[in-house]
Amino acid sequence: MRVSSGKNASNDVPEPPGATLEVDCMEHPTVIQPARHAQWRPDKMGKATLFESARLLVGLNAFEPGQVHELHSHEGMDKLYYVLEGDGVFLLEGRQMTMRAGELMVAPENVPHGIRNSGTGRLLVLTVLAPAP
Amino acid sequence: MRVSSGKNASNDVPEPPGATLEVDCMEHPTVIQPARHAQWRPDKMGKATLFESARLLVGLNAFEPGQVHELHSHEGMDKLYYVLEGDGVFLLEGRQMTMRAGELMVAPENVPHGIRNSGTGRLLVLTVLAPAP
Repeated sequence: MRVSSGKNASNDVPEPPGATLEVDCMEHPTVIQPARHAQWRPDKMGKATLFESARLLVGLNAFEPGQVHELHSHEGMDKLYYVLEGDGVFLLEGRQMTMRAGELMVAPENVPHGIRNSGTGRLLVLTVLAPAP
Repeated sequence: MRVSSGKNASNDVPEPPGATLEVDCMEHPTVIQPARHAQWRPDKMGKATLFESARLLVGLNAFEPGQVHELHSHEGMDKLYYVLEGDGVFLLEGRQMTMRAGELMVAPENVPHGIRNSGTGRLLVLTVLAPAP
């Protein structure tokens, strides 16, 4: 099964020249070192896709210091975040919770959630959505 | 949303006295340090559940040295493994692949997969199944 990495269909700005996002295809199952597939962007959070089916989307959200994924929610989808590197805050309605590498959070369907890299280093988060959007 | 941790409905041996498996309930979303919820068993791989809905099962497989989750597959479900601690091997049909903390693997539906703790320390693996069994 071939699945593209680096998919970023939700970008609302053009990719810079040379930023070919479909170059990194994977056969599954294979051993994946997720940080090698991260897409770091100077302008906003970068997204990459490690696996996608109708049932499951496994991806990466890469935050340079200060970058944010604003509060949002998913109808009919549950989301898992696992912090691979760095630290920051999980954003929830009316509160925020510190997150560090090795910690995870589940946002069940319709629960607003987001992330801010409030640290001074890079923040890399594994994301799982079920079913895929 | 309350979800029990430590669920282990697939056990085929009685739990030892005092091993109440529903004691550790969580509200979601909350920050979870997964290793704190691991169920270690002397006799076989231990399972714990961190979150479960119809769409998504997030759990832990805990392997003492030498313990194995034999080759199996899931019809209509995709599975993600992420190695939290330790090292071992991902078992696939006709081959095995070394795994280390920080690495992940996706077994798409019907792809046989398993795990063996071939190391000398504990092996803890985050597991995600979509949809839930």
